[in-house]
Amino acid sequence: MVESVNPPHRLLMGPGPINADPRVLRVMGAPLLGQFDPVFREYMKQASALYRGVFQTRNRWTLLVDGTARAAIEAALVSLIEPGDRVLVPVFGRFGHLKVEIAKRCGAEVRALETGWGTVFAPETLEKAIREFKPKLVAVSHGDTSTTMAQPLSELGHFCRDNDAILYVDATATLGGMDLRTDAWQLDVVSAGLQKCLGGPPGSAPLTLNERAEKIIQRRKHTEEGLREMGQRDGDGPVIRSNYFDLAMIMDYWSDKALNHHTEATTMLYAAHECARIVLEEGLEKAFARHARASKALVAGLSAMGLKLYGDQAHKMPNVTGVYIPQGIDGEAVRRTLLEQHNIEIGTSFGPLRGRIWRIGTMGYNARADAVEQTLRALETVLSQQKLKVPRGAAVDAALSVYR
Amino acid sequence: MVESVNPPHRLLMGPGPINADPRVLRVMGAPLLGQFDPVFREYMKQASALYRGVFQTRNRWTLLVDGTARAAIEAALVSLIEPGDRVLVPVFGRFGHLKVEIAKRCGAEVRALETGWGTVFAPETLEKAIREFKPKLVAVSHGDTSTTMAQPLSELGHFCRDNDAILYVDATATLGGMDLRTDAWQLDVVSAGLQKCLGGPPGSAPLTLNERAEKIIQRRKHTEEGLREMGQRDGDGPVIRSNYFDLAMIMDYWSDKALNHHTEATTMLYAAHECARIVLEEGLEKAFARHARASKALVAGLSAMGLKLYGDQAHKMPNVTGVYIPQGIDGEAVRRTLLEQHNIEIGTSFGPLRGRIWRIGTMGYNARADAVEQTLRALETVLSQQKLKVPRGAAVDAALSVYR
Repeated sequence: MVESVNPPHRLLMGPGPINADPRVLRVMGAPLLGQFDPVFREYMKQASALYRGVFQTRNRWTLLVDGTARAAIEAALVSLIEPGDRVLVPVFGRFGHLKVEIAKRCGAEVRALETGWGTVFAPETLEKAIREFKPKLVAVSHGDTSTTMAQPLSELGHFCRDNDAILYVDATATLGGMDLRTDAWQLDVVSAGLQKCLGGPPGSAPLTLNERAEKIIQRRKHTEEGLREMGQRDGDGPVIRSNYFDLAMIMDYWSDKALNHHTEATTMLYAAHECARIVLEEGLEKAFARHARASKALVAGLSAMGLKLYGDQAHKMPNVTGVYIPQGIDGEAVRRTLLEQHNIEIGTSFGPLRGRIWRIGTMGYNARADAVEQTLRALETVLSQQKLKVPRGAAVDAALSVYR
Repeated sequence: MVESVNPPHRLLMGPGPINADPRVLRVMGAPLLGQFDPVFREYMKQASALYRGVFQTRNRWTLLVDGTARAAIEAALVSLIEPGDRVLVPVFGRFGHLKVEIAKRCGAEVRALETGWGTVFAPETLEKAIREFKPKLVAVSHGDTSTTMAQPLSELGHFCRDNDAILYVDATATLGGMDLRTDAWQLDVVSAGLQKCLGGPPGSAPLTLNERAEKIIQRRKHTEEGLREMGQRDGDGPVIRSNYFDLAMIMDYWSDKALNHHTEATTMLYAAHECARIVLEEGLEKAFARHARASKALVAGLSAMGLKLYGDQAHKMPNVTGVYIPQGIDGEAVRRTLLEQHNIEIGTSFGPLRGRIWRIGTMGYNARADAVEQTLRALETVLSQQKLKVPRGAAVDAALSVYR
């Protein structure tokens, strides 16, 4: 018989998952409750309220999808997209491609708008594309960890309303780590995951939606067979292609009706509840500043080491940094040594960036001076061993000067 | 700011979730690992191997779907069903209706074969229906907690092969609690959840599939955009309508290729790993016997109290028992009192059984003499308070005599 899991102590400085806040891990040991226990229903309500704070929204429907971040992306898209609908996806990295592919599977007519990796879209480019393509839905990432870029979103909601489109934002990589104003920016649906800036484990995906989105979803509502109440009527829109991701049903489950759907993932809800509590206790502004500072310190350190940063620095996310692998250095060998000998994980990359850059996260619980310091010191050691000329000690000095 | 969750100590004797084994809760506090960390990949491999033991199979593809039990049902159905396919669903409770509804959303032509609630199908009825309808897929529950019935399955796989149908079994309610022989019974795809007889929290769904199912799924394989390798070819079947539940992709993620898909829900994987370890450490036969004994004791106790059991006792599941609410007793008031004053949860019921029966679980960690005893004692107290004539002490005596 194999032993129980007993993971080594890693410092996870990749693009996520990162180390969970110990307080989050602690609540995960709490005893389970039945899904209709009044105490558990109260925790669900509290989770809704807490995530309203995190999403900066007053949306009634603020809930958890029981799966990883990708589950909420699919729940949003499959619940909003009716086969044949036009969907515009601004693609500035891998997670744009993902939304293209999910939207296609939902039967949408998709237009992918692409920009070079390492750049983002100018607002007028998006406005023009929306005006021309007239999509029902625009689906965009806020931050894309594959390129480390963050797309400015403050005007996009306005463009969408002017052109009668719904705006879905995938904030998996940014929620809790940089400013995201669901209501002020007129974002109709936003979803995320716990394992990035929220400092929790993957497996629960917060989602919020407003009344514009609700109207589309409720028109497609179909009650589960065997649960229909006398006289209850379904919507006249086409049935949502998924039962598990049917947001109309998930809303009924989260509402005071408490209509049975899935069995809420008890322990993951405890974790999500604690993640939001911790972020709000710190305060959103402080959390954003902490991420920005850690990022700035990391960038200063990498630059002092003589390494070159990847992508448009004006639009880099504050929680993940791309850095070119120096000429003559085997990027995967460096990562392996960092992991095996120093217990530090940094990220590799995908697609056109594969083998060209490393991605280093400074997010959630790990957006801390000591985590940045430790990572820079170990990277310096490993690169020096690989015969790269690195000014010893300069990286940490530069990073700490940001904190001073 | 709300406080961290701090759940009361409930004894969960409903149809699930039940109290998690403390050892499972304990591993959930373990530090996270990156999804491609060799140590984490090893835990995934171990989880596969452990669930092969639990499912009694040699299937290479034995993995976890990241969601609650329903997520794995949908993953199986959406990956197997191509629009227009014929699907036969023997319905003997609510979870049969659920499979009808999911299969319809997948675009299937569904035939629902119904039997009275509280009964199961004779093997020849199923054989005849398969011969006549010629489905591509038969989707059936092993046990349906809504009726407490378990459908005998030992011949069904054979009927399916004779008629060139694939057999999917939803073993959410039974895996680990009663015998289920994936290979010996020729079950092509089987899925479950942790929150019933496996003694874990909901949120991870073990699934196994054999080569017959794999062939159908691989024909529909479509690599995610942005991840396709040079020269790689997709299948010539229709694209699976879900990305999150695309089992071809999930297999690639679990394989040695480790092709990126979702981010495996780290902590839920730790939990699933521990659940399987615990069941196999006890031994399947012993676990089944423990469930059978707890059920027998509960039944003896309820009968000694003068209560009437629900449904065909020859086919009752050993982990959940339906019992009629006595005339003149308000079933929901009894449940509320049990919960609020005695910290014990028992189950209500759905559809045609609503208000007519309670459902009492004896599953997983709670399939224990003391849990049965405590439940019977409290129920006796509450019923006596409600002026029902109950022979005091008889229930526990009868239950304990089963253990003696």
